[in-house]
Amino acid sequence: MVDDTPGRAGELLGRVRESAPLVQNITNDVAMTFVANTVLAGGGSPAMIAAPEEAGEFARLAGALTVNIGTLSASSLEGMGLAAHAANRAGTPWVLDPVAHFATAFRRGAITDLLALRPTVIRGNASEIRALAGEASAGRGVDSAEATDTAEDAARLLGRSKQAVVAVTGAHDFVTDGERALRLDGGSPLMARVTAAGCALTGLTGAFAAVARDTPFDAVVAALAAFGVAGERADGSAHGPGSFVPAFLDALGALDAETLAADARIVTA
Amino acid sequence: MVDDTPGRAGELLGRVRESAPLVQNITNDVAMTFVANTVLAGGGSPAMIAAPEEAGEFARLAGALTVNIGTLSASSLEGMGLAAHAANRAGTPWVLDPVAHFATAFRRGAITDLLALRPTVIRGNASEIRALAGEASAGRGVDSAEATDTAEDAARLLGRSKQAVVAVTGAHDFVTDGERALRLDGGSPLMARVTAAGCALTGLTGAFAAVARDTPFDAVVAALAAFGVAGERADGSAHGPGSFVPAFLDALGALDAETLAADARIVTA
Amino acid sequence: MVDDTPGRAGELLGRVRESAPLVQNITNDVAMTFVANTVLAGGGSPAMIAAPEEAGEFARLAGALTVNIGTLSASSLEGMGLAAHAANRAGTPWVLDPVAHFATAFRRGAITDLLALRPTVIRGNASEIRALAGEASAGRGVDSAEATDTAEDAARLLGRSKQAVVAVTGAHDFVTDGERALRLDGGSPLMARVTAAGCALTGLTGAFAAVARDTPFDAVVAALAAFGVAGERADGSAHGPGSFVPAFLDALGALDAETLAADARIVTA
Repeated sequence: MVDDTPGRAGELLGRVRESAPLVQNITNDVAMTFVANTVLAGGGSPAMIAAPEEAGEFARLAGALTVNIGTLSASSLEGMGLAAHAANRAGTPWVLDPVAHFATAFRRGAITDLLALRPTVIRGNASEIRALAGEASAGRGVDSAEATDTAEDAARLLGRSKQAVVAVTGAHDFVTDGERALRLDGGSPLMARVTAAGCALTGLTGAFAAVARDTPFDAVVAALAAFGVAGERADGSAHGPGSFVPAFLDALGALDAETLAADARIVTA
Repeated sequence: MVDDTPGRAGELLGRVRESAPLVQNITNDVAMTFVANTVLAGGGSPAMIAAPEEAGEFARLAGALTVNIGTLSASSLEGMGLAAHAANRAGTPWVLDPVAHFATAFRRGAITDLLALRPTVIRGNASEIRALAGEASAGRGVDSAEATDTAEDAARLLGRSKQAVVAVTGAHDFVTDGERALRLDGGSPLMARVTAAGCALTGLTGAFAAVARDTPFDAVVAALAAFGVAGERADGSAHGPGSFVPAFLDALGALDAETLAADARIVTA
Repeated sequence: MVDDTPGRAGELLGRVRESAPLVQNITNDVAMTFVANTVLAGGGSPAMIAAPEEAGEFARLAGALTVNIGTLSASSLEGMGLAAHAANRAGTPWVLDPVAHFATAFRRGAITDLLALRPTVIRGNASEIRALAGEASAGRGVDSAEATDTAEDAARLLGRSKQAVVAVTGAHDFVTDGERALRLDGGSPLMARVTAAGCALTGLTGAFAAVARDTPFDAVVAALAAFGVAGERADGSAHGPGSFVPAFLDALGALDAETLAADARIVTA
């Protein structure tokens, strides 16, 4: 099973590059450019359509939807709801990124509404996943200092209760659907020093989910593996957080199926 | 005529650098930073003022206005209308970028309203220009896969019917005012793998339109030529889509009138 | 006194890196990514929370708040007011960046409201500070062409009347609280050719203000010194405005207390 996982990741990357799936991203204002460029570098076709007037209509055209509450507004929240509804009706996978969902009452209300719309995938850092599963968290806003390990049980619980694939990302990553689980290594310490790295990964996860509708667990693992391999490569050529972003996009843009299958660092959990 | 075109492009670049025209850009949230940095690298002075409370008032101060519907909202659409009205009243040129205008009913309504405000210049990819001219399009969102050639007739038709300069951009570019027409080569395949490259070109077109109010055709050709030469140069030094953006801004920032006149790849159509 | 200033700047940089203060930035849409990455590179923890539904609640958690009116909207203005109120009530320092506040009636109204909320620090270019102090200005929108020197008297006047630390930044910088004053050299001419450099400095100032609540003058001087040293270093490795941004973030990310204390170029005023 695990022996095939890297090959499966490479296969899915090839599919993304061949079909250039349309990924609708309703993401935060800080992350927009990096998310779009990450989806493009991965081989997808990003569209950042969030207005309530069109978010639901557009979601019917998209191969996948991603929703990120980083800079929430009443208007974007309405757009997220309409888009998620439309995605569900069309059988389109959607990914929820619950940025700092515990930080304010506005976010706590929003995340309750969005979780009720049954996301296919939930991706967050350890603080966010633990708080989603009902655990108290030492997290502070978008902090990603907590270790992934501390959120593994919360992720399994959340995966089962929400029937979603849950990814906890950080220095190490963990993916589960409540039953199966994998851990991934890779990436770069510089990712924590660059804004919106997690949001970019959510966008890329949307691209993989679009080409593996029946196997979202595989899609998430492949997206995390691609992100991690590109990040590791960029770490070797970057001189700091500033040069890391272009180096990462270059590395992701150059990544092919064979390299991903060879270099992905996936272990059983 | 065509023999003078590269020299004219160089002359206009010199004018942009000397006068640093104020360019008001109402653009999408993904493109904002890249648009502003492209206008700055070209020598203009960007201002991103979109709120209905001030967009029209500010347009009276600007040397040119650009309007891009990439991430449309009810509020930004109102700001666009007020700014375009004010620009028209002041005799200020304005550039319309009809991003994916066929994708949703909201966009179709918006583009109808904006076209009625008589843009000086319309810049889009082949799908967008064909659909504006009433042709069915295989385009999908912001896709730029269709060849420029397929949109030349549509551009001529649109130029005549709207009395606007129309630019179709992609692997090759085409500019027409309905009568005259030119083709441009140059640029880089990496431009299609970077978000908001077309939006950045729209911003730069505004800077050139501001210094050539009576000759918008020349302004558009010069902007496309400058963008193409800088893109070609960046292609030589970039290692992928990530390093392309800084390399492009460096190349555009370093471009002078003589180099532009010498390297512009303009041919009669 | 002045002899200790560079050492004090280094000390405060060390404190930012140790405590990673949470800095809430309500900034403009062009600047968001650069502001967040600058705060991160400096050692702070940025959060871009602006919606009226949560801006005030979040400000009670933050170590500092920064408010920038570059792309003002009715909604963001409401969020700014609520956040500044909450910051004041909590004794949290906040920094006001009055981008082009004289350009439209909307901005003039907004800046009057925000000034009445007693910012701890005001950072602007010469045009902006002179106009805030009631002087006519040759400034045009976000223009930063005027020399810092011309705004020194205005800054002193504004500092006294508003009981704020006022920073005028440009080719040279000037900081005053109405009584004390210092001048800083450093930086790079490329900063004027990159969008949102001033906004990024405002964000960084927030990070320093958070770790020196009782000495905002020292915080501002330290932030400007760190920005200037990183900018000077980036100037040496950048090839133009495009490569300047990653080079600057790399340099800021690598800056340590000793280097800052040794290289800060601070002189008495």
